[in-house]
Amino acid sequence: MRDLKKKNPNKIVLLVMDGLGGLPREPGGPTELEAANTPNFDRLARHGSLGQTIPISPGITPGSGPAHLALFGYDPLEYDVGRGVLEAFGVGLEVNKGDVAARGNFCTIDKDGKIIDRRAGRIPTEDAIPLVDRLSAIQFPEVQIEVKHVKEYRFAVVMRGKKLEPALEDTDPQSTGVAPLPVQPLNTNSQKAADFFNKWIAGAREILADENRANAITLRGFSTDPGLPQFEEIYGLHPACIAVYPMYRGVSKLVGMEVHQFEGDRPRDEFLAAAQVWETYDFFFIHIKKTDSKGEDGDFEGKAAEIEAVDSALPDLLALQPDVLAITGDHSTPSTMKVHSWHPVPLLLWAPKTIRPDDQSSFGETACAHGALGTFAASSLMPLLLAHAGRLEKFGA
Amino acid sequence: MRDLKKKNPNKIVLLVMDGLGGLPREPGGPTELEAANTPNFDRLARHGSLGQTIPISPGITPGSGPAHLALFGYDPLEYDVGRGVLEAFGVGLEVNKGDVAARGNFCTIDKDGKIIDRRAGRIPTEDAIPLVDRLSAIQFPEVQIEVKHVKEYRFAVVMRGKKLEPALEDTDPQSTGVAPLPVQPLNTNSQKAADFFNKWIAGAREILADENRANAITLRGFSTDPGLPQFEEIYGLHPACIAVYPMYRGVSKLVGMEVHQFEGDRPRDEFLAAAQVWETYDFFFIHIKKTDSKGEDGDFEGKAAEIEAVDSALPDLLALQPDVLAITGDHSTPSTMKVHSWHPVPLLLWAPKTIRPDDQSSFGETACAHGALGTFAASSLMPLLLAHAGRLEKFGA
Repeated sequence: MRDLKKKNPNKIVLLVMDGLGGLPREPGGPTELEAANTPNFDRLARHGSLGQTIPISPGITPGSGPAHLALFGYDPLEYDVGRGVLEAFGVGLEVNKGDVAARGNFCTIDKDGKIIDRRAGRIPTEDAIPLVDRLSAIQFPEVQIEVKHVKEYRFAVVMRGKKLEPALEDTDPQSTGVAPLPVQPLNTNSQKAADFFNKWIAGAREILADENRANAITLRGFSTDPGLPQFEEIYGLHPACIAVYPMYRGVSKLVGMEVHQFEGDRPRDEFLAAAQVWETYDFFFIHIKKTDSKGEDGDFEGKAAEIEAVDSALPDLLALQPDVLAITGDHSTPSTMKVHSWHPVPLLLWAPKTIRPDDQSSFGETACAHGALGTFAASSLMPLLLAHAGRLEKFGA
Repeated sequence: MRDLKKKNPNKIVLLVMDGLGGLPREPGGPTELEAANTPNFDRLARHGSLGQTIPISPGITPGSGPAHLALFGYDPLEYDVGRGVLEAFGVGLEVNKGDVAARGNFCTIDKDGKIIDRRAGRIPTEDAIPLVDRLSAIQFPEVQIEVKHVKEYRFAVVMRGKKLEPALEDTDPQSTGVAPLPVQPLNTNSQKAADFFNKWIAGAREILADENRANAITLRGFSTDPGLPQFEEIYGLHPACIAVYPMYRGVSKLVGMEVHQFEGDRPRDEFLAAAQVWETYDFFFIHIKKTDSKGEDGDFEGKAAEIEAVDSALPDLLALQPDVLAITGDHSTPSTMKVHSWHPVPLLLWAPKTIRPDDQSSFGETACAHGALGTFAASSLMPLLLAHAGRLEKFGA
């Protein structure tokens, strides 16, 4: 891709409705996307081309991190972003090169220090937040530590300082009846980070000693910014991220996107945000979160309503006259399942000058399964967008 | 493939209409293939099975070399044929193992020897041909040099002799204001070829010294026959190439096809040529060039007419009773774009004994997108043809 890229003024929009793909509630019924009234999507479907993407590989349900890396053109099996980094991103913690992030669990230990509950009885969020605040007080002169609550018994921690390396073993023994493990360095370069995390854990144990349930912690998924190849270098694109949720801003930053801050959290606000910086960038990743949230809530109508909200705001985006527009999801989140799933993801590709239209007339899972683009790996979408933008040279003579 | 091949008398025809895939001229309209009146293709489509092939990978526009290698079953990212070799093939120069081919440009240098125009003002073909003829006069006792004009400021050169190696740096500095670079060997084995190319360039500079525009040359893409695995060895097929244009004959020879010479240049002539040697071979690659040429001319009706000419001659080919017939292209060349493109390529597969028919009744892009073969890599076509010919053993027990 690096060798084939070519610059021109054409602009590409990748509009991602998180967890877009769905399932029917009853046999023969529509999916959320098919049930939604989407006149704008359907018009684009008539003029554009449909297909389905496979986020990772058939049958594999992706997390948000790998699903977005795939959409950005990175093979998620090759480019691995650590769990600690993604957990930190999810709560808005920054992880820069040289920082070490980890996922943390509160757990319950007995008087001998052995774990009796790996999730501290799944203590509720309201009980966990004040504990995390108390952990924030543990600091050392040489390193800076940020800790933030995630959900129930989970938190994220990021250590910043000089010469920190993330090659560290998990401290969660993954079973009860044994003590949490110390942070072990996997190589000598990681000794310093191991020492400080062990000190920090010791401090936490003191603070939590009198708690009934959350009287200890475990850490896992130690990782840092993996130094992914950057969007501008690979594709020759100057990319903007327009997203409400911190996780997606974080992943975008890893690939070199600039995160545009804006007011509001509705699709219309996001399209307005794109308009504000339309001249500054030539690639716009616009992320809609609530389709996924409603799917995870099991709220079929709610998910369909979020899709309709995107559709009804779409004219604001189309008014910007993108040269290439892809409307898709990062994965499926059927509201009948209430979780991410492995099902292929509907894709609508619109590029007025070069699209080969198919005979589909609405945007939905069945229409996409019949679309001319076929079913292909999500990581192949970026080359296709670049091609339609006229931004790729011919391969070979 | 080598281990699974098995011999039998069944014959396979791969009929390639270059640049076959197209685009509609207006929204909702047909492509060139869909607009063409093709009763014979459509009859085969009813009895056969349709699909789409991706020449390289989604979004990637192939040159003719890699596109044909893919159709012949070679991963074009793994098997790279040099630019010099392909340029030489394009004008009918042979490149055998041990020869070194290069692409040449006329350029303009100032009195200090610095390039002021890398393309010699794009001198017209009629001015360039006599210059190339004069360059042909430069010869040395130890090596033989053939040079042939390509187009405007471009030519191809092939050096033949003992102990020549193509590991040579381009002499085109890719910018103006600097002198052409000398031919630098990348290893000691290439020293001899470097010396002779430098001598040849010096000779050319003398001959061109008084020219206004084309007063110097640059060479790039030094390469030789890459020694690809041979068709007979991989597939157990004795293959014939029936093609009018030298580029396709050249690429066929690289994979071990025998080029059958014949009179005429129309589809009917090519099918007659196949008939002449029908008993001698069991694989026939038949190449139709003009579909691509008309596409590159932006001539929608002309491309459709070329497709119709192939269709109307098809009964001559069918009379030979091939056991397996694939009708496809090497890539798309939409006449609306006037260049090669990345769009998937229509494929019609017909094998009376083993085909699983689909519900499509005409040969066109939308029908192929709905075909039972689905959308797959062009490099997977050969195994499919061998399978339908009964020429592959079962894999595993």
